Amino acid sequence: MVHDWGSRDASFVAINKKVLTRLCEIANGKDDYVTVPMQGSGTFAVESMLTSFVPVKGKVLVLINGAYGQRAKRILDIAGRATVVHETAEDAPPDLQEVEAILQRDHAITHIFTIHCETTSGILNPIEKIGALAALYKKSYLIDSMSAFGALPLDARGIRADAVAASSNKCIEGVPGLGFVICRRDALAQTKGNATTLVLDLYDQWANFEKTGQYRFTPPTHVIVAFHQALEEFTAEGGVPGRGGRYRNNCRILLEGMTALGFKPLLPADLQAPIIVTFHMLDHPGFVFQHFYDGLKRRGFVIYPGKLTVADSFRIGCIGRLGETQMRDALAAVREVLDEMGVTNPSTKAA
Amino acid sequence: MVHDWGSRDASFVAINKKVLTRLCEIANGKDDYVTVPMQGSGTFAVESMLTSFVPVKGKVLVLINGAYGQRAKRILDIAGRATVVHETAEDAPPDLQEVEAILQRDHAITHIFTIHCETTSGILNPIEKIGALAALYKKSYLIDSMSAFGALPLDARGIRADAVAASSNKCIEGVPGLGFVICRRDALAQTKGNATTLVLDLYDQWANFEKTGQYRFTPPTHVIVAFHQALEEFTAEGGVPGRGGRYRNNCRILLEGMTALGFKPLLPADLQAPIIVTFHMLDHPGFVFQHFYDGLKRRGFVIYPGKLTVADSFRIGCIGRLGETQMRDALAAVREVLDEMGVTNPSTKAA
Ligand SMILES: Cc1ncc(COP(=O)(O)O)c(C=O)c1O
Ligand SMILES: Cc1ncc(COP(=O)(O)O)c(C=O)c1O
Repeated sequence: MVHDWGSRDASFVAINKKVLTRLCEIANGKDDYVTVPMQGSGTFAVESMLTSFVPVKGKVLVLINGAYGQRAKRILDIAGRATVVHETAEDAPPDLQEVEAILQRDHAITHIFTIHCETTSGILNPIEKIGALAALYKKSYLIDSMSAFGALPLDARGIRADAVAASSNKCIEGVPGLGFVICRRDALAQTKGNATTLVLDLYDQWANFEKTGQYRFTPPTHVIVAFHQALEEFTAEGGVPGRGGRYRNNCRILLEGMTALGFKPLLPADLQAPIIVTFHMLDHPGFVFQHFYDGLKRRGFVIYPGKLTVADSFRIGCIGRLGETQMRDALAAVREVLDEMGVTNPSTKAA
Repeated sequence: MVHDWGSRDASFVAINKKVLTRLCEIANGKDDYVTVPMQGSGTFAVESMLTSFVPVKGKVLVLINGAYGQRAKRILDIAGRATVVHETAEDAPPDLQEVEAILQRDHAITHIFTIHCETTSGILNPIEKIGALAALYKKSYLIDSMSAFGALPLDARGIRADAVAASSNKCIEGVPGLGFVICRRDALAQTKGNATTLVLDLYDQWANFEKTGQYRFTPPTHVIVAFHQALEEFTAEGGVPGRGGRYRNNCRILLEGMTALGFKPLLPADLQAPIIVTFHMLDHPGFVFQHFYDGLKRRGFVIYPGKLTVADSFRIGCIGRLGETQMRDALAAVREVLDEMGVTNPSTKAA
């Protein structure tokens, strides 16, 4: 924090370039793709992707099964881009037959947008199958992979995505302050003049990098240098298989432990991404969520209130600098707080 | 960087609140104003100010005398807001009689936009007098104070500004990654629905703070904590008089020293803000700018190439963690490099 990184300094420019190249590799982008960074948070990257790729006369099929899908729809509404929505419950992936029917019915559709892991529930959406439909119907394919990028395999070329948005501070475990969009070069090259803002214009941001190697506007230098460090650690852990493997292990331990304590996950195993797990509230008269939340927080574990409309629930994350020890400690804390509340749970009784 | 600041954590929320309150105080905002932060860089704050305050049917009188004024005009063009431009040369402030004539002529104008210190040249624009015209003609008044905020007095209430944009990494000397807009509450309250983006919507950002005390989208936590620290140091230095005093001293030393070495500043003293100084290239056959730039850089001093269209020039900054010693060292380096180039200068000859 005390080093005065100059944004036009050669060493910063080199670090930034390494970051962008590495991100592209993670998505298997090869030379066909390029990473365009976007100052701000993940939502800035999503909005820049949507409003740069979708021209004012475009129409987006938005697949929604949670709050982040809703947010994308809101972005498009505000920016005056037409949409058609296919919405499923928060615990249900899109209905691919229905998606195909919509594509057959509505020829005005130019783009399909989906979310890789919808963090609202933790559901894994079928990005490969949606990509196959996008390719078949020749639609541009845009993905928000915010909470999945770096932990779940993502073959941008294989699934023919035109753009994938993510950010510095989820599975790559950097500090927040930078979003990015991994773009298919050919598709990005077609987006000139689409954007309806200056700052969120991915084409312009990209063109400037091509010309000067530099940001158009002051980048968050320290965030980017920290992101570079986080990527080195990510690589040292074995990249996507390593990082994803640790999260999957975290997720397994969490699910087994919580199930043993009487909690029921919202999602069946095949829909559960190893990112964040939604549990139903415990159906027991002694269980009071605020007490549960506070008791865990006092013990150093912060969980997330539920974001669902389909069920009264809460969420526990599997990502970040957490491993087996932290997950087991968290489970021990859950057990303690349940005891505090006088909640007898089946497994304790059985044991 | 290694502390995992949670964006919803009470201690972070408290730090963020202190930052926002302090920024408002610096602009003498009292209870009438509120600081709305905007993730990203300074340009993000400017674009969010322009596209949140100016409705689609608004019309902005844009006062331009440099690249940042041009940029604001470009933002408005892209966002589909009508403008009328009053442009003066880069070394000339706006012509206030002409500004008044435009206001009398064009009743469609709803807003006036100006730049406090136009960093292109370092010129100080007359924000008080423009504010008086804005008040007289009942126009909403928007200011980009990016490079001046914290160093030059700014009485937002006194000059009746509706909004003032700046960022973390100029005169407050924080790290880059956060912009902010200090808004008159009553004016901000009128902006609901104006924005044409989600992420840059200041009203929505503000409304969410009022409701939850939190950011709508992940904030750059580490940048904000560092900004808090920078503001503490700013206060310890005596706030605007202290910080501005140091910069004025830097500027004086620079001007005296460079003049003695034969350089001519672009601006007369009364138009020169103590932020960045533009000098004409030395009119001497031995003077080669690239050599000059590289020679200074090798000695640890990075200067800025000129951004002017009116003259062949370069710029030297007075802001940042610099004092008398650094300025004198810089001047010694300039002298060395001139010697290296075999440039005899009048003062050396005279001495
Ligand atoms: C799927 C998804 N999209 C978008 C976002 C928004 O990211 P940010 O809060 O950085 O704006 C998130 C944040 O959790 C997310 O999980
Ligand atoms: C007057 C002015 N406005 C806007 C900006 C843009 O700020 P940023 O580069 O942080 O986007 C600057 C940057 O120097 C500036 O001096």
